[in-house]
Amino acid sequence: MATHRFDPDFTDNVIKSMGPQTPERFREIMTSLIRHVHDFARETNLTVDEWMAGVKMMNWAGQMSDDKRNEGQLLCDVIGLESLVDEITYKLAQEAEDTPTATAILGPFFRPDTKWRQNGDNVVEGVKGGEMVFMHGRVIDFVTKKPLVNATVEMWEASTNGLYEQQDPEQVEHNLRGRFRTDEEGKYSYYCLRPTPYPVPDDGPAGKVLKLMDRHPFRPAHIHIIATYDGYKPLTTQIFDSKDPYLTNDSVFAVKDSLVVDFVPREGDTQAGLELEYDIKLVPNESKANRV
Amino acid sequence: MATHRFDPDFTDNVIKSMGPQTPERFREIMTSLIRHVHDFARETNLTVDEWMAGVKMMNWAGQMSDDKRNEGQLLCDVIGLESLVDEITYKLAQEAEDTPTATAILGPFFRPDTKWRQNGDNVVEGVKGGEMVFMHGRVIDFVTKKPLVNATVEMWEASTNGLYEQQDPEQVEHNLRGRFRTDEEGKYSYYCLRPTPYPVPDDGPAGKVLKLMDRHPFRPAHIHIIATYDGYKPLTTQIFDSKDPYLTNDSVFAVKDSLVVDFVPREGDTQAGLELEYDIKLVPNESKANRV
Repeated sequence: MATHRFDPDFTDNVIKSMGPQTPERFREIMTSLIRHVHDFARETNLTVDEWMAGVKMMNWAGQMSDDKRNEGQLLCDVIGLESLVDEITYKLAQEAEDTPTATAILGPFFRPDTKWRQNGDNVVEGVKGGEMVFMHGRVIDFVTKKPLVNATVEMWEASTNGLYEQQDPEQVEHNLRGRFRTDEEGKYSYYCLRPTPYPVPDDGPAGKVLKLMDRHPFRPAHIHIIATYDGYKPLTTQIFDSKDPYLTNDSVFAVKDSLVVDFVPREGDTQAGLELEYDIKLVPNESKANRV
Repeated sequence: MATHRFDPDFTDNVIKSMGPQTPERFREIMTSLIRHVHDFARETNLTVDEWMAGVKMMNWAGQMSDDKRNEGQLLCDVIGLESLVDEITYKLAQEAEDTPTATAILGPFFRPDTKWRQNGDNVVEGVKGGEMVFMHGRVIDFVTKKPLVNATVEMWEASTNGLYEQQDPEQVEHNLRGRFRTDEEGKYSYYCLRPTPYPVPDDGPAGKVLKLMDRHPFRPAHIHIIATYDGYKPLTTQIFDSKDPYLTNDSVFAVKDSLVVDFVPREGDTQAGLELEYDIKLVPNESKANRV
């Protein structure tokens, strides 16, 4: 805002109140946060009652949160913030010389102890409804297109009720997730579910914000994937079903065009009526190429 | 930000996701909020870990809050937001033709059922330590300077332990607060405490943010005052002791120069060693004058 209706030094004074012992990164973050929060209040002529409604929403989010649920995170998600910081973090990691591992952007349902399975295994157990998919492909070098042998591919997805196994007492442990190694041709394969769309929990403040914004709570169907190989930048991603009705209006804004895939009919396989071929391209550590 | 490192349409897409049923004021607020939150993340290159630290802080604030404590509010206060929205709300109320009552900006320790007292009464009961003050003055018309007879003056202040009576089981009910009517010369008077500085609660996320910002938690000493008179704009304010060490660095940024007062020695009064003369100026409803 170029002009303030109020004391023009107010925001600078709040920023200058930080003492010399403030850690530099914290000072950088708070300086930008204070400036934007104040500009937001001035731009909208935010009243005490409106601000207090927001405070109550934030407090309610904390009160709903526990080991199994993070409503503060969800409130950020529905305004696109997690998706944005994920993108920022990923770019920073890709640009860094020493490519720090991208553990931070794995999402809440990743498990570090995911069990190893054999190529061709079925990760689906005891799920009602849903369509079976034979998913397969290669892990290849983004630059040379050569297959990467013994690369790791890890996948996880929600069940047809919208729940991941650790959220759902009805599912067996490690259901709908697995860790695979590519064979001598760089190939991986497994049977999984065609993912189904599910709503984010809408019984708290995030649901209230969504309703006020006249939006639905659904996330488009997706499968989480991580691929790693020594000497290459790890890839953490989600792939989305091109037929999904929520593809263009994901409630948490995580869809990118390059991550949309087609499930096609599969003939002569009693285990699956659908097939998905998906090659995963990894970028060598020394490459300047970005996320692919 | 003039340039984004990321998808330039991302923020607009989040804003456009709001449906046609979104209430107009909510759309206005969310549009500005989303734009500023996203710009904040891009400007600071906010990482997932840093964002998640903020989410945990917000959730913690909610978990600490209850009927007696609002930690989400306090988190806003230490970055000056409450003081700013108070100013905005007050200006809007002053500018409005029908001068809505300013109940919103009374702060958390106002009581609508404050008891009526006689001019010259003592509002202090059973308080340890502290200095007694005889506070007096007139309520006058800001424009004509004429005294206003039968105007209402309401005051409340914290005890020497930093607690208001409703926070403190040791204090008698209605301690350190009272409602008075001006006499035929427009005068009010009472005995009260010279207010003392006190820290905001610092055992939660607001305290953590203050520590990280290398700031103390103290508020300068102050007395809350509301004055009202039919046909005049109500005045809600706080007055601050000019000798207070925290006058220039209030932890919640509520001090304004015009609200600083001098307590002076008082001779020959066994009830009080200090005196404060303070005239309260009220603006007629039809006046264009702003807060005084």
